Amino acid sequence: MSNSNTRFDIPQSEIPTQWYNIQADLPRPLPPVLHPGTKEPVGPDDLAPLFPMGLIMQEVSQDAYIDIPEEVREIYKLWRPTPLLRARRLEKALDTPAHIYYKYEGVSPSGSHKLNTATAQAYYNKQEGITGLTTETGAGQWGTALSQACSFFDMECVVYMVKISYQQKPYRRAIMETFGASVTASPSDTTQAGRAILERDADSTGSLGIAISEAVEAAVTSEGKYKYALGSVLNHVLMHQTIIGQECLKQMALADEYPDVIVAPIGGGSNFAGIALPFLRENLKNGRQTRLVGIEPAACPSLTRGKYAYDFGDTMGMTPLVKMYTLGHDFVPPPLHAGGLRYHGMASIICEMYNQDLMEAAAIPQMETFQAAITFARAEGIVPAPEAAHGVAGAIREALAAKESGEKRVILFNLCGHGHFDMTAYNAYFADELSDYEYPQAQIDAAMANLPQV
Amino acid sequence: MSNSNTRFDIPQSEIPTQWYNIQADLPRPLPPVLHPGTKEPVGPDDLAPLFPMGLIMQEVSQDAYIDIPEEVREIYKLWRPTPLLRARRLEKALDTPAHIYYKYEGVSPSGSHKLNTATAQAYYNKQEGITGLTTETGAGQWGTALSQACSFFDMECVVYMVKISYQQKPYRRAIMETFGASVTASPSDTTQAGRAILERDADSTGSLGIAISEAVEAAVTSEGKYKYALGSVLNHVLMHQTIIGQECLKQMALADEYPDVIVAPIGGGSNFAGIALPFLRENLKNGRQTRLVGIEPAACPSLTRGKYAYDFGDTMGMTPLVKMYTLGHDFVPPPLHAGGLRYHGMASIICEMYNQDLMEAAAIPQMETFQAAITFARAEGIVPAPEAAHGVAGAIREALAAKESGEKRVILFNLCGHGHFDMTAYNAYFADELSDYEYPQAQIDAAMANLPQV
Repeated sequence: MSNSNTRFDIPQSEIPTQWYNIQADLPRPLPPVLHPGTKEPVGPDDLAPLFPMGLIMQEVSQDAYIDIPEEVREIYKLWRPTPLLRARRLEKALDTPAHIYYKYEGVSPSGSHKLNTATAQAYYNKQEGITGLTTETGAGQWGTALSQACSFFDMECVVYMVKISYQQKPYRRAIMETFGASVTASPSDTTQAGRAILERDADSTGSLGIAISEAVEAAVTSEGKYKYALGSVLNHVLMHQTIIGQECLKQMALADEYPDVIVAPIGGGSNFAGIALPFLRENLKNGRQTRLVGIEPAACPSLTRGKYAYDFGDTMGMTPLVKMYTLGHDFVPPPLHAGGLRYHGMASIICEMYNQDLMEAAAIPQMETFQAAITFARAEGIVPAPEAAHGVAGAIREALAAKESGEKRVILFNLCGHGHFDMTAYNAYFADELSDYEYPQAQIDAAMANLPQV
Repeated sequence: MSNSNTRFDIPQSEIPTQWYNIQADLPRPLPPVLHPGTKEPVGPDDLAPLFPMGLIMQEVSQDAYIDIPEEVREIYKLWRPTPLLRARRLEKALDTPAHIYYKYEGVSPSGSHKLNTATAQAYYNKQEGITGLTTETGAGQWGTALSQACSFFDMECVVYMVKISYQQKPYRRAIMETFGASVTASPSDTTQAGRAILERDADSTGSLGIAISEAVEAAVTSEGKYKYALGSVLNHVLMHQTIIGQECLKQMALADEYPDVIVAPIGGGSNFAGIALPFLRENLKNGRQTRLVGIEPAACPSLTRGKYAYDFGDTMGMTPLVKMYTLGHDFVPPPLHAGGLRYHGMASIICEMYNQDLMEAAAIPQMETFQAAITFARAEGIVPAPEAAHGVAGAIREALAAKESGEKRVILFNLCGHGHFDMTAYNAYFADELSDYEYPQAQIDAAMANLPQV
């Protein structure tokens, strides 16, 4: 391979055979998850109504590496390894001495990194005789991925889609139905939770919190037929995504460079974790000093402006209590187009990384992310999803800082998905209908006054 | 590489350095293109108002190979080589002894093979000092590709988009605007042709024929600022696509197999030509006997039910006369969802291949193509564009024939693009709103009664 290559391909025989579990190497362990009633640590049995034991064991495992089942690797071969590209045209457009690399997860058939964990979750459920999975989706990336994964394993998929998205994103619904999923607008009359909401407000356009409640209820009342699947936040979900960073380690070696800094968006944390954790291991074990930078929306700044405290994972206060950087479980983020990043909290693993000074975080306003996405698209051809645009914007900040200081800097970012189903957001940007959101501290303080007592 | 691989990757250093020109090897040469007034063969100068001389020379070249400029190859590296995959899961789903391979051009940033020629066309225009390109788009694949190509070379792009598509496909418009194109609903008041239509019918929803007239007028009245670009049909366009088949030759060798049959959709012909022509050369020069099968919609059956005669390339009768299998230039195909295949004629190269028995053709009804697309999507993950679904349906017919006869058959097809911007069609399919179209022969005869006299 010559230096003029822009893509660094590894063969399918080099798809990683194990997932990497950061719990084995964190300097201090994760704080326990607490039962919302007893405030005692929850055990595997508490989670059994929702998840199969194979995933619960991964959730609490302290092993550094866990084998990827052969059947999962066979599915991964439909799109993996994903490409690592050097953004030479973007470097030129920015006139920067930095070398910018991006890992492109949008080549997955679902269009994002979500299929990495959806495939694994469907597999472990299938192994334990579960015939279908329930879940919620907002922007639609996760619902699409789980629909495909269930189709691969001949399982049913029941998706509760936030009603406003269901109405505004008929293409998302269509692709899930193409894979045989049943898609229901939430709130619906198919669950008690949905009916209760509709009784109070027949015109409710729904929320992710409500859709979660419906999906969880549909699983626990199915008499063992269905279980529930979550697309981010949990330890096992982040672990499944480490296949991304492991591939990057090999591909950066092909490019004969090593990243000085890694950038990725953070909403629940799985995308950032996927690319960063294998490099964090190199920092911890092999003396590397790569900076790891998570980018969150300025309008939903959990790490940069939240509080490290025990809180509920959902809006309704039904889940176990998790210690995390939170804006308060009843914090309502604005109608940001990066729907996948509108989460009040953050994965426990990411929170401990931040707490233990193993990573940095930055908050970027919406308009800057769209400007960055368009600069990137015109240089490299790919239109990023609004969530992915946060990673692009973070990488561009790093590249401009390198230009300012005149240093060569090797930047790697995770382009977690394309924006083909999000073009409404770009239309709104071009029509001057978008803006930034700035929170008065008092509003965040108010949302946090309602944190549960532990 | 082990036999269990599903993807056969070649490095960027193996991107072909030349396009292949079938004109050098056709047993009998192409019939001349005639001036619509004099009925004499047209020369390069007749085409100069519309195209740059670099492309006109390619149009008439008899050289077997033409170098791909370095600048074009650098752009190709953003997404090429594209993957060749073996559809092992589809084979299992069909329970066929056939081996099914597909070349996936949907990984291009524009989502289809069209970017291969758009990039080349933008380059040659830029070389001759042209500052922008005009074109028409219906379904939107071509408009998207040309918008991106113009953005790569810092050129303006003026797209006339059929008004009904402009209204129904806001995502398509958004992606073109993301790349800086100016998109105008056609008929518009920006051209004489458009104004003439609007005077007769203020509510006209437009047609590809009208949009072509507007784009051509915008180019020829621009005083040399703009030229016009066409996404299929012409010899140089088909030649640019041969990069697809050349890559396949190397990738099939990696898979240690050789195709018995190659299948691809045919509308104007560039997608089929792209994968088939390098293999046709192997048939003609090296004793191979691969069957080459073009799949057209049963609702627009140019090759299988048309007449081989001189006809206009456009609906309005303004272009030179080309000898082709045609349904008559005023044949109006039904509102088929595979908009890219709704063309009354066919590329001259494809027509001579068919006339000289160098290829086969089959017509497949719309419903069968959607059923095939869904079978493919559930097995392999990728949702095909409605045009690409014709190739899938043709490949499945071949695989089932192999099952019937119990023979191993190596099938290769071109999956020319994804359907992310065409999910309306899938929604219509699931809502039982689609049907097949069957033409009474009398209707085709009537359309052909109007062929120009030569």
